[in-house]
Parts: sequence; C-alpha cells; structure tokens
Amino acid sequence: MITADTTLGEVTEEGLLRSIFPFFTPQPGLLVGPGDDAAVVASSGAVIATTDTMVRGRDWLDEWSSAADVGVKLLTQNLADVAAMGGVGTSVLVTLVADPATPVAWARAFARSVGEGAADAGVAVAGGDLSSAPAGVLLVSITALGDLQGRPAVLRSGARPGDVVAVCGTLGRSAAGLLLLQRGEGAMGQAGAGRREWAGSRDGGMRKLCLAHHRAPVAPLAAGPAAAAAGATAMLDVSDGLLRDGSRIAAASGVRLDLSNAALAPDIETLATAVGEGAARECVLAGGEEHSLLATFPAARLPDSWRAIGTVSDGTGITLDGEPQQPRGWDHFRQEPDTDD
Amino acid sequence: MITADTTLGEVTEEGLLRSIFPFFTPQPGLLVGPGDDAAVVASSGAVIATTDTMVRGRDWLDEWSSAADVGVKLLTQNLADVAAMGGVGTSVLVTLVADPATPVAWARAFARSVGEGAADAGVAVAGGDLSSAPAGVLLVSITALGDLQGRPAVLRSGARPGDVVAVCGTLGRSAAGLLLLQRGEGAMGQAGAGRREWAGSRDGGMRKLCLAHHRAPVAPLAAGPAAAAAGATAMLDVSDGLLRDGSRIAAASGVRLDLSNAALAPDIETLATAVGEGAARECVLAGGEEHSLLATFPAARLPDSWRAIGTVSDGTGITLDGEPQQPRGWDHFRQEPDTDD
Repeated sequence: MITADTTLGEVTEEGLLRSIFPFFTPQPGLLVGPGDDAAVVASSGAVIATTDTMVRGRDWLDEWSSAADVGVKLLTQNLADVAAMGGVGTSVLVTLVADPATPVAWARAFARSVGEGAADAGVAVAGGDLSSAPAGVLLVSITALGDLQGRPAVLRSGARPGDVVAVCGTLGRSAAGLLLLQRGEGAMGQAGAGRREWAGSRDGGMRKLCLAHHRAPVAPLAAGPAAAAAGATAMLDVSDGLLRDGSRIAAASGVRLDLSNAALAPDIETLATAVGEGAARECVLAGGEEHSLLATFPAARLPDSWRAIGTVSDGTGITLDGEPQQPRGWDHFRQEPDTDD
Repeated sequence: MITADTTLGEVTEEGLLRSIFPFFTPQPGLLVGPGDDAAVVASSGAVIATTDTMVRGRDWLDEWSSAADVGVKLLTQNLADVAAMGGVGTSVLVTLVADPATPVAWARAFARSVGEGAADAGVAVAGGDLSSAPAGVLLVSITALGDLQGRPAVLRSGARPGDVVAVCGTLGRSAAGLLLLQRGEGAMGQAGAGRREWAGSRDGGMRKLCLAHHRAPVAPLAAGPAAAAAGATAMLDVSDGLLRDGSRIAAASGVRLDLSNAALAPDIETLATAVGEGAARECVLAGGEEHSLLATFPAARLPDSWRAIGTVSDGTGITLDGEPQQPRGWDHFRQEPDTDD
C-alpha cells in the first residue's frame, strides 16, 4: 500500500506505472499508447519534435516549486517550442530519473500535473521512461511531438526587412518571480500566508502572477499555429530572454531587429509594481523561461493578441531605440549568466 | 581551445554544439534539423516514438564502457523498440545531462558514436538538449522516432494459438558479457591485452563477442519491418530477458507461449564456451539488454533469418518443454533482479 512516506524504492516499476497511467487521458491521435515497445501517433505528414530536461537544483528548487509546478513548467517549455514552429502539440513522452528515496507522492503529483496539462492542450501522454538515479538526483524530461497541419514550419530564419516584430504573451514575469523568490518572498512554506497578505495590497496581484508564472508558466500555445496561418515569417518562444532570443532571429535571418522602448514601457511599468522599475526593465529585456512567442510578420498581417514591439531592418544584431544591445542570457554548463560568444 | 583535459564547464554550450554538429549526417527525411526551436521530420502518416535513458553507475560503468560504447548501446535500445513495432527509424533526439566536470572528450566521443550509428541506420540526429547535473552525475537519453511505411504497427497483443514463436538475433550474449566483466575479465584498462590472449584460445572468440554485445549491442533492425511485412502477429525486442519478455507477449495476447529446450540448445551450447553451461542457460533464458527480436508468426510465414523456438497455445504464461516458467528480470527502482508481481 502506498502511503505519504512511501519511496520509489519501495514499489515496483509496474506498480508505479499502474498508479500513474490513469492520469493520462487518451487522445484521438494516439494510435498506440503506453505499454508496448513504442507509441504510435497519427501525423499529417511532418512531425515536429523537441525535448527539454529539468534537473532539481538547477532548474527548480523543492523549496520553491511543487511537483505539480515542475510538471506544468516542463510541459509548457516543450509545447511552446512546438507552437513556435507554428505547430499543434500531439503527444509527449515523459522521463523520470529519480533517486529511489524520492517519495512516490512526488512522482504521482508530477505525473498528474503533466497528464492534466497535456489533456487541457489536447496532447496525449504517449509513453516515457523510468530510471533510478544516484542519491539526491531528481530530473524530469519531456519530448513533445507536434503536427504542422499541412503548413510549412515557421523558422527563425524568415524575417525580412520591413516586417513588424511582435510579441504574444507576457514579458519578464518568470524572471520577476524568480527575483521575488530570491528576495525571500513566496517560498513554498510561507506561500499561503504570503499570498493572502499580498491580496490586500496594491502590488500583491502582480507579485502573485509573477510567482505563478515562474513556477508554472502558461504559454499562448494556440497563438503559434494562428501566427503561422497569418503569415508569420519567423518565430520562437522567449526562453532565454527577449534580447538574446531576438538576436537569434536577427542572426538566423541576416537582419537587424529594432525594438522600441515606448512599446515595451507598459510591460516594464506593470512589472515595476512587483519588483521595482530597474529590475522590471532587466526582467522584460533579459528574463528567460517566459515562453511567450516572439515573431515577425509582414506589416499588414499582425493577428489579434499580438502587439508590435519593433521592426525588422537591413543590418545585424538588435537595437533598442536605435542603441545596439548586447544579448544577455544563460549558459547551461557555466552555471551562470553569460553573453553570447 | 579544447584539449584532452577540457571539461564541459570550461566551454560554452554553443561552442560545444558547434564541435558536435559535424558528427550528425543530414538525412532526406529531416526537414528541419538542430538549431531552431524544434526539429521537423517527414512522416508517412503514423509516427513511432520511444525514449530510453542510461545513467552512469546504473546502466554503465566507465571502467567497462567507453563513451562510444554508451552511444551505440543507447541508440540500439531505442531503434530496437522502433523495429519491434515493425517500423523504420527516421530520427533521434539526444539529451546529455552532465556534471560540468565531465570531459568534453567524453561528450564528443558519445556524440560521434551516436552520429555514426544513426547514419549507418539511415536515421537523422534531429536535435536534443544539454543540461548540467550535480557532481558525479552523467546520463544520456535518446528519443527515437520511426515510420510504419503505411503498415499497421505490430503490437504485443496479436499472438494467436497456432502461431510460431521465433527469434531473430542472438540470445544471452549481453548478459554473458556482463558476467565476464563482473568476473574481472575484459575491463577497459586490460582490454587490449585480454583480447589478444583470448584470440588464441578456443573460447576467446565467443568471449569477445559477448563483451562487445554487452558494451555496444547490435540489433537486427531491418528484421523488424521485414517481419511486419511477412505478417508477424506480435513482436518486441528482448530487453529484459526471453522469459520475461515472452511472458509479456503471452499476457498482452491472452495466450501461452510454449518454448522448446531443443530449439534453445544451440544458443546455450555456443554461449557455454564463454561462461560455462549453467550460466549460459540462465543468460539465454533471462538475460536482458540483448535487443534481438522476439515475434510470433502464422506457421507458414517465418521469414529468413528467424528461427522457431516454440509455439503459441491457448492458456496463460510461458513454458519450457511444458514446464511453467517464472519470469525473471530487472526492476528499475529496486536496483536488483526481481520477479513480476
């Protein structure tokens, strides 16, 4: 019998799987689900595929994020990559590599969260893998598959001079949420009390939104295929910061992105109520893990729910009101913020 | 500059990727390769998807397996799952989660091995993920995608009374190789000398084959789609042992598998020259990580390169010359051999 204290080392793999599979809602496109050598997923002719891993201690801290938060975040960052190609997610494979001392309850809460998030997005949990890890290690990985529905993929390389640069979704909230956690606000243990306290204050609502977006981000997934249908020329999701990710579109397309301070001012102003003006500006320009969509469109074609933040010109790099910007962001193995080399 | 001592923590992610991408040979079905938010792979209408992870210390030891060995083994176990559905591998996503103190040389040798193995199989390396891990941790993961070429998938559940049970590929070699390593034969440091010594002896050839199959198994990948085309009714790859995997076909199909000692005798006899008679028998019946294919066929249809080892009957479970067998195998979190519950 599984109790609150049961660890993964105390149950069989098959027992664990039996307790997890009910969290996964079948979807029409899943032709063969978990339990065989491999899954089989329907496809309209071109499959989008991407994979992302989260490691405890590097990508989340148990003090700040619940198992359910980790499930949402991992799913979102994978499905945002599918959306950024202009595709619709169809299925995910989920991997858990865990110290056998990990509570079964953590694994079940994570699986439930992934299952519910996937079902909300119409995505099937098609399979996965379980492995034991050295003491203290816990990591989770998802591979997401998607479908282009007959359209060509929207790459990073298609931006053309004269295009509009536009964003769908928030900017800087995840980074602001992390900053609040680093300042000691909103840790798991005190979250309930903290949240109640903020609710009465002017800036409490925004702090809550930032903390929520850092822990369990929501991405505008449907806006990806809609942008593709509307003629987006280049697209990606903001995972490493607006300046760094914008520079990637510029480099891949052989163009310059000119962003406008005035267009970003509302984002900074809103965020400033939570973290202050200076931090808000840095979060909007360089904050990662946001998973909003950044795209370029022919001028006449900006779809609903996108807002223009700049234009595409001949040249290289990225500017803000004409000032060249140095992309800032994260390098995985160096374990600290780093500039592009 | 990268030297033999350079670690992952001393290079940028982009620098590492630049040095690895040349190992990956483009393939016709890869429509969008590494470098965008996600890859795009051509599909004929149904995508096979599977994922497997290997963790250092659990799935391999550096004393016994090189980075190139790990690359081959990880690729083989994923592509064997695709083949076991009756499909042809199209692409893989490759994940490396590594302590920053890991030598760059290890990562490059691993990537080169995966790239070469994939190219040999006509499979594209479509993308992947890099993450840093806690001290001492090194793990690699592959998601493989495949194509059914318009055929239905061959499941575990299609075996029918009267079918022939057949194997394509070796049995027990990987387990025998592991046994030799556990006995102190064939460790990396002494491998060269050891291999020369054996070459002159009667059983040296088989020992070498077992060590090689444990470290870097080769699976009969083309036999999977060929079996599907020939009408195989059920199929899987032998990853957890003949008895355990055979029991899975029996359970999924609602039938009994009756294996024949006489049919398995040549496998046991061959292996006995390397590890002795008793161990050879156990390796053939319960040895995992072999990645040969086990399938059932209507009696008249056994394709070339498959050998009959039994028949399918009404009933449940698995027998050997009529004696019911208890499936034995591996449970991931318990870290020790376990029986099915």
